[in-house]
Amino acid sequence: MSKLCEIMAIVRPNKMLATKKALAEIGLPSFTAFPCFGRGRQAGRVGEISYPISPEVIEKAKDMGPTFIPKRIILAVVPEAMVEKVVQTIIKVNQTGQHGDGKIFVLPVEESYRVRTGEKNLEALF
Amino acid sequence: MSKLCEIMAIVRPNKMLATKKALAEIGLPSFTAFPCFGRGRQAGRVGEISYPISPEVIEKAKDMGPTFIPKRIILAVVPEAMVEKVVQTIIKVNQTGQHGDGKIFVLPVEESYRVRTGEKNLEALF
Amino acid sequence: MSKLCEIMAIVRPNKMLATKKALAEIGLPSFTAFPCFGRGRQAGRVGEISYPISPEVIEKAKDMGPTFIPKRIILAVVPEAMVEKVVQTIIKVNQTGQHGDGKIFVLPVEESYRVRTGEKNLEALF
Repeated sequence: MSKLCEIMAIVRPNKMLATKKALAEIGLPSFTAFPCFGRGRQAGRVGEISYPISPEVIEKAKDMGPTFIPKRIILAVVPEAMVEKVVQTIIKVNQTGQHGDGKIFVLPVEESYRVRTGEKNLEALF
Repeated sequence: MSKLCEIMAIVRPNKMLATKKALAEIGLPSFTAFPCFGRGRQAGRVGEISYPISPEVIEKAKDMGPTFIPKRIILAVVPEAMVEKVVQTIIKVNQTGQHGDGKIFVLPVEESYRVRTGEKNLEALF
Repeated sequence: MSKLCEIMAIVRPNKMLATKKALAEIGLPSFTAFPCFGRGRQAGRVGEISYPISPEVIEKAKDMGPTFIPKRIILAVVPEAMVEKVVQTIIKVNQTGQHGDGKIFVLPVEESYRVRTGEKNLEALF
């Protein structure tokens, strides 16, 4: 595995706060998140949504075509040694056992920079 | 090439529905999408936009600076053996011959997890 | 390093226009951008925000949970030989010396396609 890895997790919006708290507790204070629309093997059956969705989000979901469900993407770049712990923490917090719990992907990262200081790689992560 | 690959396609918003249908037909039911703003070699000439854009989106485009055009990013993680078929399907559906048809990038993925079951790698994809 | 690289930069929204101009000046006319919410080592202290934020964006930030700050993600795929110049250009434009200046990550890219022509790899970039 690469020395630096990007962890991309696609999770339910209503799990963001708990995920953020759990990641901070294992020493990962730093990540980025944004809204997306997802469809997994369950083909995005809307009846399975159990959290409140604003009219604005429903309009946007329609714009993406039918059967897309609002999700959140979490991006974090971590040292290889942290990957397993971060992945298992995200699984633990987000696993409800229902379809739509999400996916986690790990991608190799070749370089990392902190803009404020110009620091590079491991020094630039947290 | 890696055994797992992320396919990132940047396409026109009005091609999302057709792309989704075409991908389902070749056996890819599962992907994620979100709005973005793009500028390619054509420098984002607004006059080339042929699809309707809501006032809200135009406001957001202004916020990104001039000459940015609303696009959609599609993300899908697939086994290496599916990459060529998925790429060619996206090209076929999205190719109008006009500037702004979009780009497709293929990135290596080291690990994949299904949150609901904890399954890993190929078992976690679909 | 890979022959093609994705540069992912997470920057302040009010630096987008200057970043776009600087990248065009070094010969990179083509990239994609979208809004996100970030929290770095500084834990996203809102008091540090110095640019105007619309009420709509503040609402969305609340939706992401406390202490998330609006950012922009810039994605550009470039040949390996351009990585250093693009990274240093983004750092130069975005470095204020304050926490929250952002991060830059470089990821390997295995393939690149231009949808309009079907061109591949280096020919498909710009």
